[in-house]
Amino acid sequence: MDKKVKVNASILIIGNEILSGRTQDTNTSTIATWLNSIGVSVAEVRIIPDIQEIIVNTLNLLRSKHDYVFTTGGIGPTHDDITAESVSKAFGIKYEVHKEAFKILETYYEPGKFNDGRQKMAWMPENANLILNPTSGAPGFNVENVFSLPGVPSILKSMLGGLTNKIVGGEPIKSLTISLRTVESEIASSLTKVQNENMDVEIGSYPFFHSGKLGVSIVIRSEDQKKIDNCNSQILEFVNEKKIEVVDR
Amino acid sequence: MDKKVKVNASILIIGNEILSGRTQDTNTSTIATWLNSIGVSVAEVRIIPDIQEIIVNTLNLLRSKHDYVFTTGGIGPTHDDITAESVSKAFGIKYEVHKEAFKILETYYEPGKFNDGRQKMAWMPENANLILNPTSGAPGFNVENVFSLPGVPSILKSMLGGLTNKIVGGEPIKSLTISLRTVESEIASSLTKVQNENMDVEIGSYPFFHSGKLGVSIVIRSEDQKKIDNCNSQILEFVNEKKIEVVDR
Repeated sequence: MDKKVKVNASILIIGNEILSGRTQDTNTSTIATWLNSIGVSVAEVRIIPDIQEIIVNTLNLLRSKHDYVFTTGGIGPTHDDITAESVSKAFGIKYEVHKEAFKILETYYEPGKFNDGRQKMAWMPENANLILNPTSGAPGFNVENVFSLPGVPSILKSMLGGLTNKIVGGEPIKSLTISLRTVESEIASSLTKVQNENMDVEIGSYPFFHSGKLGVSIVIRSEDQKKIDNCNSQILEFVNEKKIEVVDR
Repeated sequence: MDKKVKVNASILIIGNEILSGRTQDTNTSTIATWLNSIGVSVAEVRIIPDIQEIIVNTLNLLRSKHDYVFTTGGIGPTHDDITAESVSKAFGIKYEVHKEAFKILETYYEPGKFNDGRQKMAWMPENANLILNPTSGAPGFNVENVFSLPGVPSILKSMLGGLTNKIVGGEPIKSLTISLRTVESEIASSLTKVQNENMDVEIGSYPFFHSGKLGVSIVIRSEDQKKIDNCNSQILEFVNEKKIEVVDR
């Protein structure tokens, strides 16, 4: 496996329930954390409605722009689950019963319980690779660089482990967090200086409010631990000078 | 105020911390719920990194596509807060000290505490309308159909109330949820029939797991209460026939 230095991905969240505000998306954070751990950065996330034309167009754009695309949602048994058909259309391949998926589902359900709705979950893009589902039977699927996962967070989470060996990441992205008992404006100019001297390191500053106290977390991210350590020293230098307390968070 | 039947918006979440998975976005759900209540549908959400070129291009696309655009994040005092400058660039207008914002911030901080970092928060697109911040002083801003809000959820929430009279929504989108003690595949074909007979109503089906029990919430959404009631009756009809229990959720 050749490791590219930078490997990126996008996440496509499909579902009216997220756009209406009814459901809080947590899959972005789950997938992004997992991808970072295997050396893949998330370049963008889009949340779109259950409308076939929009899914097809967005997917075709994202899969040409990024090394990997992960879709969530829309692979269940009901009428609003249109991801599998949309992915087939995006790739211009047949949408049909996937024999292996059909067998898995047939075995999963009790005899007589494998009804039409459940059979719909075996419909997929022709020759898709299955993504096994240790939680609730119905598999996700993979075509080229697109991986389609369910929307239910606990089920999605349980499926990521089985995917890790299918993704070729770059150098894992390391990160270091320094939490300070201060406010952003007290450190802004010093932090800008550190960022300007380390342009290829990502330095983020995030205010927090925890146990009744304000603070700021500085997050340093890079593939190169030495660069992180170097930024860390430079930051701790001004932190000491300003007599700012470093805290656990 | 002329009410259009359909008014839509997009949400642009700006921030590496969301893309890395470190921070769980909750602003989408907050903004979407508020917009729905004033008759605005969210058509799409994008999460993008703190990179000026990407912010400028994405914003210019979204503001031409949707009635309103709401950005979150990147309006604080640190080097990674580049939203105000990016919005100025997107509109091709000057990025400068906003006199009213400067005055608000100067008054907010104790004498001698209005340092460079804090003064940066007064830099905005020329002649932007301010969005007042009852929580922490620093205002957001509005240029044409773009509204820029902070990333910290509690601060963002506190600013939405003051925005309500600046947004002209369409008919409020009403919704009704029916929660059932069943699984999706048991009701999929009946629900498809109801959806096909009511094509202009949005019917979503969402499995849940609550207090150790599985269930499905059916969400009916429309501007027209009569259409919702009609779908509700049709759904309750098959629910009764199938002897499925309706539950609270």
